[in-house]
Amino acid sequence: MKTFKEIKKLLHVATFFTLMVCAVVLTPSCSDDETVVEEKVNEITKYKTPKYIFYFIGDGMANPQINLAEAALNNTGFRLKSSSIGVGDMNISKFEVAGMATTYAQDRYITGSAAAATALATGEKTTINTISKNGDRTRNIETLAEMARDKGMRVGIVSSVSIDHATPACFYAHVNERKEYYNIASQMASSKFDYFGGGYAKGNFPSKGDGDILEKMKGAGYAIATTREELAAVKSGNKCWAYNHKTDRDGALLYEIDRPADCLSLTEFTKKGIELLDNENGFFLMVEAGKVDWACHANDAVSATHNMIEFDNAIGEAIAFYNAHPEETLIVLTGDHECGGLSIGFAGTGYENMFDLLKCQKLSYEAFTYKVKSWQPNTSFENALDSVELYFGLRNTTIDETLALSSSETQRLKTAFDLSMTDEKGDIYGGYDPFTLTITHILNNKAGLAWTSFKHTGVPVPVMAMGQGQYEFSGYYDNTDIAKKIMKVGALKVD
Amino acid sequence: MKTFKEIKKLLHVATFFTLMVCAVVLTPSCSDDETVVEEKVNEITKYKTPKYIFYFIGDGMANPQINLAEAALNNTGFRLKSSSIGVGDMNISKFEVAGMATTYAQDRYITGSAAAATALATGEKTTINTISKNGDRTRNIETLAEMARDKGMRVGIVSSVSIDHATPACFYAHVNERKEYYNIASQMASSKFDYFGGGYAKGNFPSKGDGDILEKMKGAGYAIATTREELAAVKSGNKCWAYNHKTDRDGALLYEIDRPADCLSLTEFTKKGIELLDNENGFFLMVEAGKVDWACHANDAVSATHNMIEFDNAIGEAIAFYNAHPEETLIVLTGDHECGGLSIGFAGTGYENMFDLLKCQKLSYEAFTYKVKSWQPNTSFENALDSVELYFGLRNTTIDETLALSSSETQRLKTAFDLSMTDEKGDIYGGYDPFTLTITHILNNKAGLAWTSFKHTGVPVPVMAMGQGQYEFSGYYDNTDIAKKIMKVGALKVD
Repeated sequence: MKTFKEIKKLLHVATFFTLMVCAVVLTPSCSDDETVVEEKVNEITKYKTPKYIFYFIGDGMANPQINLAEAALNNTGFRLKSSSIGVGDMNISKFEVAGMATTYAQDRYITGSAAAATALATGEKTTINTISKNGDRTRNIETLAEMARDKGMRVGIVSSVSIDHATPACFYAHVNERKEYYNIASQMASSKFDYFGGGYAKGNFPSKGDGDILEKMKGAGYAIATTREELAAVKSGNKCWAYNHKTDRDGALLYEIDRPADCLSLTEFTKKGIELLDNENGFFLMVEAGKVDWACHANDAVSATHNMIEFDNAIGEAIAFYNAHPEETLIVLTGDHECGGLSIGFAGTGYENMFDLLKCQKLSYEAFTYKVKSWQPNTSFENALDSVELYFGLRNTTIDETLALSSSETQRLKTAFDLSMTDEKGDIYGGYDPFTLTITHILNNKAGLAWTSFKHTGVPVPVMAMGQGQYEFSGYYDNTDIAKKIMKVGALKVD
Repeated sequence: MKTFKEIKKLLHVATFFTLMVCAVVLTPSCSDDETVVEEKVNEITKYKTPKYIFYFIGDGMANPQINLAEAALNNTGFRLKSSSIGVGDMNISKFEVAGMATTYAQDRYITGSAAAATALATGEKTTINTISKNGDRTRNIETLAEMARDKGMRVGIVSSVSIDHATPACFYAHVNERKEYYNIASQMASSKFDYFGGGYAKGNFPSKGDGDILEKMKGAGYAIATTREELAAVKSGNKCWAYNHKTDRDGALLYEIDRPADCLSLTEFTKKGIELLDNENGFFLMVEAGKVDWACHANDAVSATHNMIEFDNAIGEAIAFYNAHPEETLIVLTGDHECGGLSIGFAGTGYENMFDLLKCQKLSYEAFTYKVKSWQPNTSFENALDSVELYFGLRNTTIDETLALSSSETQRLKTAFDLSMTDEKGDIYGGYDPFTLTITHILNNKAGLAWTSFKHTGVPVPVMAMGQGQYEFSGYYDNTDIAKKIMKVGALKVD
């Protein structure tokens, strides 16, 4: 047993060390390094509940999609040994905090957009195709957007695909099957959210349920805007559903590479969303780049990259807002899953890339497929190759000699062309137009890019964060954790 | 101009706010959330220059390699809809901080191990194949390991490939071309580093320069240990070069899946390294998983995964050390580049994976290739298929019906077998034995895995950090920044 003297001595020692620690902690910084450390401490001690929360979701976006966009933005000099190699200056690269998240669904390792978006919107795993309900579909799960709404924040949902598609749907709807588009779209009107922007409702053509979705939306007090002018006329504080008067056959925005000048971009929908939502009670704005996924399903790297760069521009709008309100804003960016098994590296090109060649593609696989389908049955292969040269550069050796078609490439194109002309799908084209798919595969491969799948893949996705509570998003965790972290930092869960 | 009264009033206000802030900062936590925030603040305010720095480099390791290892560790139930899907409990998943890094070389978008390791070891970009010299090879660049040595820390270099291979070499040698193995290995002896562990020196068989590398090392005071017993006998504080008495033909450790019981594992070399280096002046230990890359070059997912799991075990040794010395340790983990364009997703299996099937493979592509090369020229295809079934499970439908070989798969195997038996390489096998490569491709594809290349790819790599200064490693940056961050946190640069 210790004597009183020994205990007193111990107390003295303890006091001495406590004072030492205090001295170290409280002594003002004297070097650059310490200043940096101190700034970071301040960032965390100042971590305030953000009033403004942005949630950017790149559908089908993981590291390869981001990195390809970066490379494409700086696509000179890659053929020659030079010191100019680098990556482009993207907004995505400006996030100070990064993490990684696993994406698996409750019942499948490779997830789907519904299960992934449910995880991202609610913090709970669910089964494939389920929209913000639990795995056996017996219970609705509250979403971040609903929590924000109930806290008094304004809420906006923006997507480049139809507004009733899985990812946006998971923020405002609760249905068993993602294909219940009409059911999903109907729940927009009862959501009491303030802004829906981007795509039209796929569930509304043709309207199969009890009444037109547009009428339901108007009845719920939403202004409808379908042009740049109409959207500009919507005043702050008004509820609004904005979509382009021209969409693809699924109600989605046209691919950015095909977008007509009179159609709004994802960035414009995002910018207007910020304007409409901005108010002193704060807002929650989710923005999805949905067609990155679709382009990757079709293995069309160029269309995916144009949409990635447009997504990055939309993120730029949030960063501009953050710069104006750094103490009150949180921006979180992630992908729901990778798509296509894209790699910047192909067996046929080894260690080389020729990102320059991607510039030769002038339209999306989708727009070209419409052309192919419009061709007469007796269209000659030679005519078809002219179109290939015009829209994809292949065979045009005046641009670059590597665009020459080898005999095996020509044979692959001919085989695919014959299938396309007889309206057959073939086994190896993933359900896409065989001729179009073969063209994008050949162009992608020549640039040093390759794909392993027409579906999603199971690799982790990056997570980035900027603003209040950003350090919560560091590390390697599960996609359900992203929603939980936003709930925590944003104090969204009102008990 | 302000009156004295106004200034006094301002001072009062300033004092009031200062006290407010102090009150907020000093008030004890009252909720769980605040506790977490406070803990993080403490972590950063306590960010002390770490005495012990671990640097783990997975060669050819990016997200797909990590994620596959996680999936393989939890490889049950993937075929059926169940709630058991998840990821394995890896040490890699225990890092609180994550980041991502671009990898490009000065003169090529897709990097090589020499340029990448130079970036990781020195913080400077260089050209392909250059070992810790600048791009035009006119200047040596000081490495983290040399800085640590000059600061008085002990230094260890561990690798599963030959100790004169690009990644380990970049920490102690400066040469123009990575293939100058003898030159590189010679610089081990003059490095004054304390421990080299893992691979033998490829540059020493046959010794081409001025004397045997082993003799040089002994002359420089290094104990040589080639067995478990010999290594155990080396005492702390002694300099040592430890390698296995059995290596592959390049001086590297045998693949983990093939490792004989009397050979040391990467984990054992790491553990002994920690024991030998531990001292009150601290240490710097670099551990490379080099053969993950080689397995991925050969598109052998199973061998890559066994080596990833072994790498993870080695990381576990560092984490155990960190847990004993949390205030004095930093662990940084990254990859130098991805390899093979691995995806967890294959066009032929769509959204499904069958990780279970990977268990059927019993040896590495390398070990099987030796078998194939040993076969008599008149070996029958039927005999060969027996070996395929024995070592890879293919055709064994009693294990799983999906292991059945389709007629097209059998044809692919036959074509490849005929090439292998005539010692031809073929065009599509990346220089590997055609029969072996076709087997691993078929097995990988059946499991839902696919590859795009036999070379590295250009996607960013993950970075993880644990311990003192860990938050410096958050975000998205360049691979040169990783070394700069270690220099800064470790205060390694002595001016």
